Amino acid sequence: MTSGTAARGSYAKTAGRRSEILEAAAVVFAEHGYENGSLRAIAAKVGISQAGVLFHFGSKIDLLEAVLDLRDQRSRERFTRRTEGQPAGIAHLRAFVDLVRDNVEEPGMIQLYSVLAAEATAAGHPAHAYFAGRYDWLIEQAHVSLLALRDQDLLRPGVEPGHAARTLVAVLDGLQLQWLYHPDRVDTVGDLRTSIQQLVSVPL
Amino acid sequence: MTSGTAARGSYAKTAGRRSEILEAAAVVFAEHGYENGSLRAIAAKVGISQAGVLFHFGSKIDLLEAVLDLRDQRSRERFTRRTEGQPAGIAHLRAFVDLVRDNVEEPGMIQLYSVLAAEATAAGHPAHAYFAGRYDWLIEQAHVSLLALRDQDLLRPGVEPGHAARTLVAVLDGLQLQWLYHPDRVDTVGDLRTSIQQLVSVPL
Repeated sequence: MTSGTAARGSYAKTAGRRSEILEAAAVVFAEHGYENGSLRAIAAKVGISQAGVLFHFGSKIDLLEAVLDLRDQRSRERFTRRTEGQPAGIAHLRAFVDLVRDNVEEPGMIQLYSVLAAEATAAGHPAHAYFAGRYDWLIEQAHVSLLALRDQDLLRPGVEPGHAARTLVAVLDGLQLQWLYHPDRVDTVGDLRTSIQQLVSVPL
Repeated sequence: MTSGTAARGSYAKTAGRRSEILEAAAVVFAEHGYENGSLRAIAAKVGISQAGVLFHFGSKIDLLEAVLDLRDQRSRERFTRRTEGQPAGIAHLRAFVDLVRDNVEEPGMIQLYSVLAAEATAAGHPAHAYFAGRYDWLIEQAHVSLLALRDQDLLRPGVEPGHAARTLVAVLDGLQLQWLYHPDRVDTVGDLRTSIQQLVSVPL
C-alpha cells in the first residue's frame, strides 16, 4: 500500500490511529452534527491533541469526507458482493433491504447520516454536494431496479417506477428517523420490506 | 390578552418585537440547527442585543419552544378549520395534503423541522421530547384516518393501517429532505398525493 520508507510496524500504527480517529469522528458528528462537532472532542476521544488529528486528516472537512467515504465504500462492497452476477431487479431490492438491516446494527451511523443529511441541506454546508449526489445515486439505483422489474412484468398494477424510487428512499429516511426516537417500537427493516412488497408481485 | 398596566401602544410594540424575534429565530435555527444557532445571530437579525432577546423569551430553549409552538398552533388551526364537522377519514387525509402544500410555501420552516428533527434524535437535546411526541401524534392522526377508511371499506386490498400511517409520515419527511436538495425536481405534494392515492380507493 505504501512505497515510503516507514517500517511495517509504523505503518500499521498509523493505519490504526487513522481508524481510531475515524470512529471517534463518526460518533462526535453523529451526536452534534458537523458544524457543532469539534475537533477538540474528537481528539479527546482518541486521547491525542487536535494537532494530532490534523496531522492525519489535514482539516475537519477532510475528516468528514473520510468518514463518509469509508462508510460508502463498505456499503458498496457489501452490495456488490450480494448482487454479483445477478441482473438488476428483485435481487438488487433484496440487497438493499440487507444493507438497511446491516445499518440497524450501527445506530450511531444512522444518526450520523440523519443529522448530516438534514444539516447539509444548507447550500453552503461542506457536505451539501455529497448528500445531493448521494440522493441522486440512491434514487437512480432504485429506479433502475424498478424499471427492470416493470420490464419483467413483476410490478403491481399502478406502480410508477419513478415515483416508487423516490418514495422508497424517502420512506427509509423517515423510518430511520422514527426509529431513532423509538428504537423499541419502530421496525425499520420490517416496514421497509412491507413497502417494497406492496410494489412488486414476486416475494421479496 | 393582558390585564397589566401597559398602554395599548406599548403592548402592540411588545407583540411586534416578539414576533420579529420568533421569525429571526426560525431562520437562524433552520440554517444552523438549535445547538449551533446563536442568540447573538438572532439578536443581530432583529437589530437588538442578546439581552433584548432574553428579555422577551427568558432563554434560548424557551425561544425554541415558542417557535415550535407558534408553528404547531397555526397548523392545528388550519387543519381544524378544514376538517370542521367532517368525520375522520378521507377529509382528514385531504387536509393533511393541504397542510403540506402550505408548508412548501415556507421552505425555511421545512428546513427548520428537518434539521431540528434530526438533531433532536440525541437523547439529551432540549427538543427531544417535543419531536418524539410530535411523531407519535402525527402517526396517530394518520392511523385514525386510515382505520376509519378501513371501516368504510375504502382502503385498497393489502393496506394495513398501522404500516400505512408510519410510512406516510416517513415518506413526507424523506420527500421534504429530497426537496431541500432539489427544489426544482422534487414535487413533494404530488408524490405524497400519489402515495396516499395508492392506499385508498376513493379519489383524494
